[in-house]
Amino acid sequence: MQFQLTREFLDQLRSSLQSSSEQEVISLVGELHAADIAEIVEELEIEEAKILYSYLDAEKASEVLINIDEDIRDKHIAAFTSKQIAEIFIENLESDDAADVIAVLPQHEREEVIACLEDQEQAEDIVDLLNFQEGTAGALMGKELVEVNENWSVKQCIREMRKQAENVDHIYTIYVVDDHEKLLGRLSLKKILTATADKKIADIYETGLITCKTYTPSDEVANLMEKYDLVALPVLDELGRLVGRITIDDVVDVIREEAEKDYQMASGLSDTVDSSDSIWVNTRARLPWLVLGLIGGIFGARVIGLYEEDLKIMPQMAFFIPLIAAMGGNVGVQSSAIIVQGLANNSLGMGGIGPKLSKEFSVALFNGFVCASLILCYNLIASDSLVLSYTVSISLFAVILFAALFGTLVPLLLNKYKIDPALATGPFITTVNDILGLFIYFIVGRMLYLA
Amino acid sequence: MQFQLTREFLDQLRSSLQSSSEQEVISLVGELHAADIAEIVEELEIEEAKILYSYLDAEKASEVLINIDEDIRDKHIAAFTSKQIAEIFIENLESDDAADVIAVLPQHEREEVIACLEDQEQAEDIVDLLNFQEGTAGALMGKELVEVNENWSVKQCIREMRKQAENVDHIYTIYVVDDHEKLLGRLSLKKILTATADKKIADIYETGLITCKTYTPSDEVANLMEKYDLVALPVLDELGRLVGRITIDDVVDVIREEAEKDYQMASGLSDTVDSSDSIWVNTRARLPWLVLGLIGGIFGARVIGLYEEDLKIMPQMAFFIPLIAAMGGNVGVQSSAIIVQGLANNSLGMGGIGPKLSKEFSVALFNGFVCASLILCYNLIASDSLVLSYTVSISLFAVILFAALFGTLVPLLLNKYKIDPALATGPFITTVNDILGLFIYFIVGRMLYLA
Repeated sequence: MQFQLTREFLDQLRSSLQSSSEQEVISLVGELHAADIAEIVEELEIEEAKILYSYLDAEKASEVLINIDEDIRDKHIAAFTSKQIAEIFIENLESDDAADVIAVLPQHEREEVIACLEDQEQAEDIVDLLNFQEGTAGALMGKELVEVNENWSVKQCIREMRKQAENVDHIYTIYVVDDHEKLLGRLSLKKILTATADKKIADIYETGLITCKTYTPSDEVANLMEKYDLVALPVLDELGRLVGRITIDDVVDVIREEAEKDYQMASGLSDTVDSSDSIWVNTRARLPWLVLGLIGGIFGARVIGLYEEDLKIMPQMAFFIPLIAAMGGNVGVQSSAIIVQGLANNSLGMGGIGPKLSKEFSVALFNGFVCASLILCYNLIASDSLVLSYTVSISLFAVILFAALFGTLVPLLLNKYKIDPALATGPFITTVNDILGLFIYFIVGRMLYLA
Repeated sequence: MQFQLTREFLDQLRSSLQSSSEQEVISLVGELHAADIAEIVEELEIEEAKILYSYLDAEKASEVLINIDEDIRDKHIAAFTSKQIAEIFIENLESDDAADVIAVLPQHEREEVIACLEDQEQAEDIVDLLNFQEGTAGALMGKELVEVNENWSVKQCIREMRKQAENVDHIYTIYVVDDHEKLLGRLSLKKILTATADKKIADIYETGLITCKTYTPSDEVANLMEKYDLVALPVLDELGRLVGRITIDDVVDVIREEAEKDYQMASGLSDTVDSSDSIWVNTRARLPWLVLGLIGGIFGARVIGLYEEDLKIMPQMAFFIPLIAAMGGNVGVQSSAIIVQGLANNSLGMGGIGPKLSKEFSVALFNGFVCASLILCYNLIASDSLVLSYTVSISLFAVILFAALFGTLVPLLLNKYKIDPALATGPFITTVNDILGLFIYFIVGRMLYLA
C-alpha cells in the first residue's frame, strides 16, 4: 500500500517528462499522495519538476511544493514567475505555508506575488504573518480556524461553522470568543452533537485553554504542546485576542529540528547540514570544529613539550597519552550530554547546581575507581615499571573526576548565561579535557617519579 | 498564566499534605492542569503522592498518573492495591494509557486489576492491547474511535456518533467501515455539516487513507505520521479490519525518544538514562563505553610501544600524539553522524554507498588539506625538526581521509545488517580511529625518518 520510490520508476517518469507525455506522467503519479510525489520531485532536475508541476492540478502541486525539502523548494520557487507562484501555489495553501513560501523571496517579489492574489482576505493574512519574527509562535501559526461567538445559539453556531469550514481543511478545535475577539474557551464536538439547538454557546463551552502569545519562542511552543498533549494551540495577541493557531504537525518539525541540532553539535557539526547538502556546505559545517580540535592539539603538544625531559627519562609514559586524553573526553561528553538533554526536555527538576554536581561526582568516583583498577591490573601484568603503572591509574582516576565535574558545570553555566548548552558537548569539551588530562598525567608522573 | 513550580509552593504543599488538610491541598492544586500536577507529584515522596491522589477526583488522579515520568509512575502504581489501581486509575483512562499502566505489573496482579474493572468492554480492550509486542503499532494504539457504517444515512450517522462520542475524549477522524469492519475511508466533519440528512455515507466519504498494521514498528509509524502530517493513524489487523488508532501525541514521544537515543549513543551512554535516574543506573549506562575506551587506550599504548625505539630517537613525536588521535576521532564522528541522521530521517535519498563515499571523500580532501596546511605552518615556525613537521602534516592528512571513509562506511554497513547505525557514532568510532591514527602517524614517521 505504501509507495516506495525505485530507480526504475524514476527513470520511467523522467523519460515521460522529457517526452512531455502528460498522460503517462499522470498515470504514474496521479494516484500518489502529495508527500510521495514530493519525494520524487526532490530527485528531479528543476526543468523536469516544472513540467511535473504543470501537469498536476494546482491544489496537488501546491501540496507537493510544501512537502519538499526546504533547500530544493527555494530553487523551485525561483524558477517560476511571481504570477505563477501566486496562482499555482499560494492560492491553494494555508496561510502559514503560504507565508513560509513567500518569506524566501526578495522583498520586491514578495509584493508582486501578494499583488497577484485574488483573495483579499488571504493576502491580508499572509502580510500579517510575514511580520512575525522567525522562531516565534507568530511565524509558526496559521490563520485558518473555526471560531464562534459566545452569544450564539448552537443552531446559529452550526450554520456559521458550515460557512467557515469552507476555508478550513481540518477542524482541530472550535474556539469561543467574545464580541471583541477575545478568546474565552473551546467548544467540544461532543457538546455540539448532544446539546439542543437553542442552547446558548456561553452555557456549554469549556474554559481553561492552554494558549500562547505571538511572541512565544517556538521551542517553548513545542514544550507546551508536548507537555499538555495538544493537537492545536491557540495564539493570542497582546490584547488576548485570538489571531491564529499552531498545529501539531508544524511542532513535530520543531521538535525534530531541535533534537537534530543537539545531535549535530555533539558530533561536531555546526549549522544544519545533511547528506544531500553540497560539498561546500558540508565543509563549512565541519571545518570550524576541526580547527578547534587542531588548536587543542597544538596546546596538547605544548603541554607535553613542557615535560620533554621526563619523557626522555621515562619514554613509556608516551604510551598512555592517547588513553588519558580519550578517557577525559569520553567522560566529559557523557556528563555534559546528560545535562544538555535534561535542559532540552525540562527533566532536570528542582534544585540548583549542587545536587547535580554531587551526583555526577559519585558516578565519576565509581567509574573512575573501576577504570583505574582495570588499567592497574593490566599494567602490573604487561608493564615492567611500577611507577608508570601507578602514574597511569592515579592520573586516570583524577582525570575522570575532573572531566565529569567540568562536563556538568560547563553546560549549566552556558545555560545560565543564555548560551546554547549544546555547544558544550562534543569537540569543545573533548578538546578541553584532552589538555587538562595531559596536564594531570604529567604532573602525577613527575611527582611519583621524584618520590 | 502558565504554572511555574517553585520551591516555596512545593514546601507549602508538602506541609499541607503532611497535616492532611484536604482543603488546603485542593486550593493549591485544584485549578491546575493534570500535566502541571504531574510535575509537582514527581517531586513528592510516595506517601505524600498517595495522599494527593486520594484528594483529587479519580479522573484527575488518573490523568496525573499518566503524565508523570515512567520510572516514578511504576513506583506509585506499586504503592496501590489492585482494586485501587482499577478503580482510581484504570477506569478513567483511555485504553492505550490503561494498557501502559497495567503492562508494568506482574502477571498475577494484571489479572487482579482487570478482574476489578466494571466495564466489560474496557477490560476486553485492555486485554487485547496487552497482547501486542512493545515497539509495534499495536502497543501504541488506543481503541477509542468513532466509526460509522457506509450504509448509514447522515442522520443515522450523527445519532450513532452521539452515542460513541460518550466514550471518546477527542474526535480526530470519523472512520467509515463496511459490514465486516473493514476500513473504507474517512468522513470529514465538513461533509457532515454540509450534507443533507438523508444522504448515504457511501456517497460522501473520502478514500485513500494512510494506514498501518498492528505489527508495523513504532519508528515506521512515526515516520508515516510525520511524512503525511497526520494527527491520527488508523491501525488495521491482518484482515484489513479497523482495530484502533494512534494519535500524534503518542508519536511525539516516539520521535523524541528516537532522537534522544541517537544523541545518547553519540555521547557514549547506553540505555535510556536521564539526570533523575539513580547513581547506579547512571553508572551502568556509562561504564561499558568507558571500558571500551580503556581497551582502545591499551591498544593505542601497544601501537606506540611498537615504535618505542623511534620515540627515543625522535622524542618530539610524542607531542603530537593527542592531536592525531583527536582529529581522527572528530572527523569520524562527523561523517558517521551525517549518515546516522540521514538514515533516521530518511533523507539519504537514492543511490548506493558509492556516491556517499565519494562525497565524504571530497569533503575530507578539502578539510584534510586545510588542517594539514595549518599545522604545517605552525610547525615550520614553532618546531626545529623538518622531518617532524612533515610527518605530522602528512599523517594528519591521511588520518582525516581514512577517518571520513571509515565513519561513512561503518554506519552504512551496520544498517545493512539491521544493526542500529547509531552504535557507530561516539566512543566506538573515536576509539577505532584513535588506534588507526596512531598507526598511520608512526608509519609515516618511520618512513620519513629513514628517508
